[in-house]
Amino acid sequence: MAEDAKKLAHGAVRIDFATDPSRYRHWRLAVADDTASLTMDVDEEGGLFEGYQLKLNSYDLGVDIELADALQRLRFEHPAVKVVVLRSGKPRVFCAGANIRMLAVADHAHKVNFCKFTNETRNAMEDAAAFSDQHFLCVVTGTAAGGGYELALATDHIMLVDDGTASVSLPEVPLLAVLPGTGGLTRIVDKRKMRRDHADVFCTTEEGIRGQRAIDWRLVDELVPQSKLEERVGARVRAVAAKSHRSGPARGIALTPLDRRFGVHSVTYGFVAVEIDRTARIATITLRGPEAPPSASAAAMVELGAGFWPLQVARELDDAILHLRNNEFEIGTLLFKTAGDPARVASYDVFLAAQGAHWLAHEIRHLWKRVLKRIDVTSRTLVAVIEPGSCFAGTLAELVFAADRSYMLIGRRDGDNRPPAALTLTAANFGDYPMANGLTRLATRFLGEPDTLATAGARQDVALDAKEAETLGLVTFALDDIDWADELRLFLEERASFSPDALTGMEANLRFAGPETMETKIFARLTAWQNWIFQRPNAVGADGALRRYGSGEKPGFDWRRV
Amino acid sequence: MAEDAKKLAHGAVRIDFATDPSRYRHWRLAVADDTASLTMDVDEEGGLFEGYQLKLNSYDLGVDIELADALQRLRFEHPAVKVVVLRSGKPRVFCAGANIRMLAVADHAHKVNFCKFTNETRNAMEDAAAFSDQHFLCVVTGTAAGGGYELALATDHIMLVDDGTASVSLPEVPLLAVLPGTGGLTRIVDKRKMRRDHADVFCTTEEGIRGQRAIDWRLVDELVPQSKLEERVGARVRAVAAKSHRSGPARGIALTPLDRRFGVHSVTYGFVAVEIDRTARIATITLRGPEAPPSASAAAMVELGAGFWPLQVARELDDAILHLRNNEFEIGTLLFKTAGDPARVASYDVFLAAQGAHWLAHEIRHLWKRVLKRIDVTSRTLVAVIEPGSCFAGTLAELVFAADRSYMLIGRRDGDNRPPAALTLTAANFGDYPMANGLTRLATRFLGEPDTLATAGARQDVALDAKEAETLGLVTFALDDIDWADELRLFLEERASFSPDALTGMEANLRFAGPETMETKIFARLTAWQNWIFQRPNAVGADGALRRYGSGEKPGFDWRRV
Repeated sequence: MAEDAKKLAHGAVRIDFATDPSRYRHWRLAVADDTASLTMDVDEEGGLFEGYQLKLNSYDLGVDIELADALQRLRFEHPAVKVVVLRSGKPRVFCAGANIRMLAVADHAHKVNFCKFTNETRNAMEDAAAFSDQHFLCVVTGTAAGGGYELALATDHIMLVDDGTASVSLPEVPLLAVLPGTGGLTRIVDKRKMRRDHADVFCTTEEGIRGQRAIDWRLVDELVPQSKLEERVGARVRAVAAKSHRSGPARGIALTPLDRRFGVHSVTYGFVAVEIDRTARIATITLRGPEAPPSASAAAMVELGAGFWPLQVARELDDAILHLRNNEFEIGTLLFKTAGDPARVASYDVFLAAQGAHWLAHEIRHLWKRVLKRIDVTSRTLVAVIEPGSCFAGTLAELVFAADRSYMLIGRRDGDNRPPAALTLTAANFGDYPMANGLTRLATRFLGEPDTLATAGARQDVALDAKEAETLGLVTFALDDIDWADELRLFLEERASFSPDALTGMEANLRFAGPETMETKIFARLTAWQNWIFQRPNAVGADGALRRYGSGEKPGFDWRRV
Repeated sequence: MAEDAKKLAHGAVRIDFATDPSRYRHWRLAVADDTASLTMDVDEEGGLFEGYQLKLNSYDLGVDIELADALQRLRFEHPAVKVVVLRSGKPRVFCAGANIRMLAVADHAHKVNFCKFTNETRNAMEDAAAFSDQHFLCVVTGTAAGGGYELALATDHIMLVDDGTASVSLPEVPLLAVLPGTGGLTRIVDKRKMRRDHADVFCTTEEGIRGQRAIDWRLVDELVPQSKLEERVGARVRAVAAKSHRSGPARGIALTPLDRRFGVHSVTYGFVAVEIDRTARIATITLRGPEAPPSASAAAMVELGAGFWPLQVARELDDAILHLRNNEFEIGTLLFKTAGDPARVASYDVFLAAQGAHWLAHEIRHLWKRVLKRIDVTSRTLVAVIEPGSCFAGTLAELVFAADRSYMLIGRRDGDNRPPAALTLTAANFGDYPMANGLTRLATRFLGEPDTLATAGARQDVALDAKEAETLGLVTFALDDIDWADELRLFLEERASFSPDALTGMEANLRFAGPETMETKIFARLTAWQNWIFQRPNAVGADGALRRYGSGEKPGFDWRRV
């Protein structure tokens, strides 16, 4: 971690994204038949870093890591759950949003990556509703402020207690001189379609809005008297459950702990290995293909559970990306490599497609979709390296299309008798993994050349050699062994010499051609503005609002509009 | 201007957006029949600020002000021109982009507003092609680097000389640690639909790309041998002209100099008056309605020319907004007021609609569209104040819908015998003035309530009082005289106490709900990232790339990825 990173609490040596309900300090997950309750009850002393308390159900990254874990388990461990009731375990407060002391002292890089992860987690709630018919009801008792209301905004239905005090608010602008950065500004006008002038009033009203106006202005869906609360929640749960087609068994599969070893320069998982070169500022992520053919049946897949290759490798890759994002800020480039039998990798795509209607196959495909989207918004240069012995086929080939550029070796290497590198497309590359823009990576890649997309589509399930992959437009460069090492070395050295900020901005603009969605708006427009504001003295300077918060002193602002 | 603003050159006291071809120092505009040539030949000594020379056809805001003026005149003064050939007047260089010394020393606020204006100017070229069938051909001789290539990207067709040296490049990331901030990153992948991995290579290759690869990678449209250049340009001009339906007369109307007086606290135009309160940080912009009914005929409108009310007021408003944006950075709020007869204002909409097929009426409508879009992206709080005596009707009512919020007085004031304020919708509000998102302001406003949009549509050409305007959702607040002064004062005082940056970010996110377009991407995603980078020490710090450029010393970077 960077030298001025703040000290992790409780003796932790890194930010760890692996957890399970038995270790939660901030959330309670309870499941009964088709309904779950997810209760936020933040432990004040459970902050991720030293130096602040998580009062009033405010949160930091550690709180959100538990939420993300719970959401994942609701998909895999509780496939019968149709409705999740999100509520607060504290009286008089639903959630006070991101912890302000944490925001005031955190490094810029940590803060930005914290917001990115919280955004991904809220998107995961909407993903559950859209693709697994697992819906979230939010019961707002007390105040839902800032990130607290943004959490509610990610649910399907917001119930607000009408007790004269419960309210929703986005007080960031008046109170802290920053933006509601977890999708709030986007969701109020684009998801809830609040009128923009109402939104202007709402976002500049520190105390927020309650009662009938919250309904009139589309901020919440239902106003409920305190005395009728449980009855109305129950009725709403039954109504939502009745409309959901989610039909998994009561018991899903256990998301067992990741098999994971951290070394000084490595992280080693079952099928994923990360090598970290801090001098070159490069991490190499190698994914190993499966050791056996896919299961013979859906039942056998369920039996394997978290050990089923596509699921295990997706979870490992996700953890590796999150680790690098949040613990290794100076690593500028991620090199993706694979090792294994491409035909066998492709056979898993065939198996998952054949079992498409099975709840577990369905969840695995959607997990891969989310992991790949996480890679898309990872602000590191992404490079795919395709060499003999690699297995970039189908799902794994998406890493090539997620990469900023890709290099493929032509032919064999001297003294290496393995067959030349191949790239293999499967049906999965043509629909299973839409990006945040709603298009597949290949459709985005070939926006200007729809014929090329069709030509590639006609070459599915064929081992494409480097020349053909280049001709089809699937890789950036196909190189002979003579040029390979020098070209790659020069590229990586040059890349490492560029400004990290300029690369982040460039990649964020080049990766998402084509349509925009609420999701791309959140990661592009909203996030970019928030990052800008997080650099401005008016927010983070010694006299800025974040530093002055709670001091009783007014912030000192530079009044120039930019 | 802010205290640390740099000194304007040539004794100027403000940045002035009014110019005409007789005063151009950097461009030559020549018109022959249906073809114009627009030649960039920047005067090195003609920089807007002191302290830098505009070498190699590099530009600053002053150069772009002339370009914007030329584009406007091509629409109004040269309605017969179907093709504009954009070229360089200098040997071996097309355009070196934004001047780097200027970028290195300019204030953040100036830099951001400079980029905004250059973006609007490039959009104006695409607007001419899309709506007036006036097309731009770009002839790249020599190097088109950074903003130079971005200028080419805004044209319809890019011809590159194939002489082994002419090239296009976006070297900002490797050279300057900033982004190509004038639409380049967006246009290469979204307009030209370049593959993202090619775009990655292109944007990190300092020397750029020339010859056949520039064609293969979709960077240019035509590669032309030097010996055939004029012949091929001529052929292309004839081909484009043959397809254009633009059919105005050889002689349009003269865009005569604006009638304009600058005072210490005011700018006064014929129909527009700006009062500046620097203590409250508010500018009040009052637009006066027309003094006479619309012309009896199209010929009479042409006869009035630049004095025709809708045209004059649009030009004045545009100039006023640009003046405030670039010379009055500390003014945080713009109050829009009107004075006049709403029925008469509406009658001009009726006239323009009836004359819709006439070239001048068409151009006036599109000018209004562009002025309103400029207001949309103006990073100041926009407020419409609707009082007795005002004339917010049709086109002028768009200011109410462009505003972040609006206040309308109910009934009369004591001692004021004018009729109560009215708001009047015309057909112009339902289609003539799409925002950058492609929707009208009313359609954007009522995204969540399409029925409300239809209800408002049924109440066209009626003077709506405050109660009805509020019920229809057209204004934010309708207030009695008892509450009016206090409410407005409290709002304006509170607004003035908020962080300017937070307001800028908030407004940029709330104003553009709904679909995204290339234009919104440029003003949102790209601009926000660029603004962030413009704040980062890696670009603008003492050791940053912009400061170190040309010193022979490498920049010093903080390697953390954010």
